[in-house]
Amino acid sequence: MSVLDELSEIGRTAEPTMREYVLRGASPEFREVLTHQLDAGGKMLRPALVMLACEAAGGSRHEALKAAAAMELVHNYSLIFDDIIDRGEIRRGKPTTRKVFGDSMALLAALHYREAIAQVVNDSPKSATLHGLVSKTIESLVEGERADIVYEQAGRQEDYIRRVRLREPSWETYESIVAHKTGSLMEACAEAGAIVAGASEKIRKALGDYARLAGEAFQIVDDTLDIFGEEAKLGKKVGKDIAEHKLGNAAILLALDELDGDRREALLSILRKEDVSQGDIDRAIGLMKTTNCRDRAFSSAREKVEMAKKALKVLPQSHASRRLTELAESFVSREF
Amino acid sequence: MSVLDELSEIGRTAEPTMREYVLRGASPEFREVLTHQLDAGGKMLRPALVMLACEAAGGSRHEALKAAAAMELVHNYSLIFDDIIDRGEIRRGKPTTRKVFGDSMALLAALHYREAIAQVVNDSPKSATLHGLVSKTIESLVEGERADIVYEQAGRQEDYIRRVRLREPSWETYESIVAHKTGSLMEACAEAGAIVAGASEKIRKALGDYARLAGEAFQIVDDTLDIFGEEAKLGKKVGKDIAEHKLGNAAILLALDELDGDRREALLSILRKEDVSQGDIDRAIGLMKTTNCRDRAFSSAREKVEMAKKALKVLPQSHASRRLTELAESFVSREF
Repeated sequence: MSVLDELSEIGRTAEPTMREYVLRGASPEFREVLTHQLDAGGKMLRPALVMLACEAAGGSRHEALKAAAAMELVHNYSLIFDDIIDRGEIRRGKPTTRKVFGDSMALLAALHYREAIAQVVNDSPKSATLHGLVSKTIESLVEGERADIVYEQAGRQEDYIRRVRLREPSWETYESIVAHKTGSLMEACAEAGAIVAGASEKIRKALGDYARLAGEAFQIVDDTLDIFGEEAKLGKKVGKDIAEHKLGNAAILLALDELDGDRREALLSILRKEDVSQGDIDRAIGLMKTTNCRDRAFSSAREKVEMAKKALKVLPQSHASRRLTELAESFVSREF
Repeated sequence: MSVLDELSEIGRTAEPTMREYVLRGASPEFREVLTHQLDAGGKMLRPALVMLACEAAGGSRHEALKAAAAMELVHNYSLIFDDIIDRGEIRRGKPTTRKVFGDSMALLAALHYREAIAQVVNDSPKSATLHGLVSKTIESLVEGERADIVYEQAGRQEDYIRRVRLREPSWETYESIVAHKTGSLMEACAEAGAIVAGASEKIRKALGDYARLAGEAFQIVDDTLDIFGEEAKLGKKVGKDIAEHKLGNAAILLALDELDGDRREALLSILRKEDVSQGDIDRAIGLMKTTNCRDRAFSSAREKVEMAKKALKVLPQSHASRRLTELAESFVSREF
């Protein structure tokens, strides 16, 4: 069994707990709205990460079950509100909650998910520490989404956003957005496992560093696949980030770093068009292909994975720690 | 000093704590969005209720300060998301967060407020119990908002909402919406004070019952003023609930209960018009004036206030308990 398959299997053991907490305080009429996001499934890597981190830190998978359910619910919560903000209609090949039930109901569903999270955390071992961790993590996701919005180069009509928009490509800004949007939740998953296991500060930090770095590597590869992947394997359109005017994509930023005056302006001007055509996307990808952005992005992801693996070395060797190592490796061996 | 003025003064002592928790995890760029709702002010009755309930139950105002800040933040959180859902542009005479910064930023601000709440609760005495209480309360506010939406008779284009819309006037449905949207938060404020004071279950329940009933009375009077009040005193347009197609208004429901066949249909058909004109509003109010709905609504509020005062009788007499009694009375002596 591949490491991803094994992790999905572990992660899925948190599903009944997630469902229980989402539904137990809900009116019968609200249930179909609330279950829509749960029914969409997912790879369940985050709850698996919580449970494996707990095991790697000397605890058991079972005692981390509620923390694992909480963390996957945080992920689901963020997906519902991301889709509201980005007007997302399809996710995991299925219509989003907002597409089926409208924005108002999707918003209420998200707010309800947050309470399911509070309740499952309250019932978990080490709940006070976990409440703080979960809260800081969601704050970080919200900040990441905010920064991502103001880093889009077009497509939003609100006066405020147009006024504060960041127009300068910057790898530092990108790293900060990825740390907030992807790294922080992965880090929190591993830390939650360590907290439940009662691990030392050193072990908790090692697991957190590992997961944050692996998560950031995953995101960089994901960005690169958005531009250079194959539609059939991606399950979504190639160049979606270009269509969405995003500067917050590793490959786009590295291409802009290499391109000279006119060609750099050409790529930027496509990102800044209110309506991006298929021809624009093809032209942008053509420009990017003249640079080494793909290899450089991939190297940067690989470097993060090596640092992630190194962080794990303070832990005692175990089945769990080996699986975590393999998980990080799998993030940079995804098919291009 | 009037009881409302005294309570506002007590409530305002929670303001610095609210601001501290909202701002401490926020990026500098996010601050202007986050402070907008706080700067709008408010009567601060909810934090005063937390602190007076704590005092009435034998504790001190000071130890309830964080719980009080949390509860007023819950109220502010609900105002931001209510305005997103109802496209509200003005509140307390000022433009709403969504009006100034757009829906996406307002949504992110609301999500951030929820984390400020989690953090201030986590730092409060009796935090585990308060986490559970706050979570159940927000769940209730969300359910109330959901039920309120499906009880509107027009004005939303989403297929899902049109499909599940409730078309039958029902006092029972109304009571349930008011309990969820207004009663539950008031009840939770008083319970939070009792919890921090370490009060017995009996005292906690008495304070909770008192506040829920008083809150429901307040809402019924508020509904009645929406129809029969004076614009200058209300600070908003008379008949706003009619313009917003709401069945969830005490006076409207009681009028429908009294009106006979054709006149009942006439009032319902105004609520069901996609575009409600000033003439429609005047006509609806004219129809309502032929009934006793105003007196009946007022009697129903007065009855709840009497029950609220009765609930308080299990508490020892104190300055705090007298102020709570006067507060409930003030809700039904508002000027018509």
